[in-house]
Amino acid sequence: MRVLGIDPGLTRCGIGIVEGSVGKPLSMVSVGVILTPSDLALESRLLELDRAINEWVSIWNPDVIAVERVFAQHNVRTVMGTGQAAGIALLIAAKSGIPVMMHTPSEVKAAVTGSGRANKAQVATMVAKLLNLSEIPKPVDATDALALAICHIWRGGANTNIATALAAEKSRLRKLRG
Amino acid sequence: MRVLGIDPGLTRCGIGIVEGSVGKPLSMVSVGVILTPSDLALESRLLELDRAINEWVSIWNPDVIAVERVFAQHNVRTVMGTGQAAGIALLIAAKSGIPVMMHTPSEVKAAVTGSGRANKAQVATMVAKLLNLSEIPKPVDATDALALAICHIWRGGANTNIATALAAEKSRLRKLRG
Repeated sequence: MRVLGIDPGLTRCGIGIVEGSVGKPLSMVSVGVILTPSDLALESRLLELDRAINEWVSIWNPDVIAVERVFAQHNVRTVMGTGQAAGIALLIAAKSGIPVMMHTPSEVKAAVTGSGRANKAQVATMVAKLLNLSEIPKPVDATDALALAICHIWRGGANTNIATALAAEKSRLRKLRG
Repeated sequence: MRVLGIDPGLTRCGIGIVEGSVGKPLSMVSVGVILTPSDLALESRLLELDRAINEWVSIWNPDVIAVERVFAQHNVRTVMGTGQAAGIALLIAAKSGIPVMMHTPSEVKAAVTGSGRANKAQVATMVAKLLNLSEIPKPVDATDALALAICHIWRGGANTNIATALAAEKSRLRKLRG
């Protein structure tokens, strides 16, 4: 299963692709950060974000998209931008017919480090270890996007089974179409 | 100038078109509310909202889009949905090349009633009066969208002048192409 993880943000949006399945080794396919300049008009920043995420989707063709679930309680100052970025990621998934799921920051931390209260450095270290990377990807938004994708693969259970079935069906249809 | 006003929301998104210019009578072109069922997946609700707003834009061809500026402080429970809806409205404007502006709730109230602290009923009464409507449009989200469009037309000043110039240029290009 190929998962596109998105850590939504307006100034820095982390994005990364991880391939793997439960019980098998994981591998990083690609990782990056989408930056939009804060002196640009809000609508132009959203347009750039939309363009860049669409580009990732069309290049890497993920089976599932995982987006961090943001809560209004954290960072009141930036929460609107984060919400708008998340909304655009969800809309792109829906338009592309790619299953999308949201995971909370503590679900991601727990999946990757075993503790829902792990700090950023612990998460980054585990992401590098799990993906067998020689260096920790920078900035932290990129690591968070990879952690999110790993969390999605590992959380298993009904939701992932459904997503896997949908991914298999999508890939079957792709082959049929040619 | 034809203005599309959007009062962003996930459960109820108010939408309305007002035509007019500073110093001339205003008229309502259309008004409505986009509803998305709360039992639908978030990405499907955003997709439906995107479809519906795009439909309004392509049917009514507005010169400017005015979106209510939402603050994270109000209604923490619904603020993420409101932010996502606003983000989609802004993205549609950017994609369509239509100038977009945001106005705060107090700017809208002040423009329509003369007081930034007016209540919902006062705003609704004034909207009906200004647009020469025999009844107040329901629900309040619809009235708010119309109030937003009126506010945009009446605030005048540099921003509206720029938008008017852009609208004139767009209309000129449309005629040249068409």
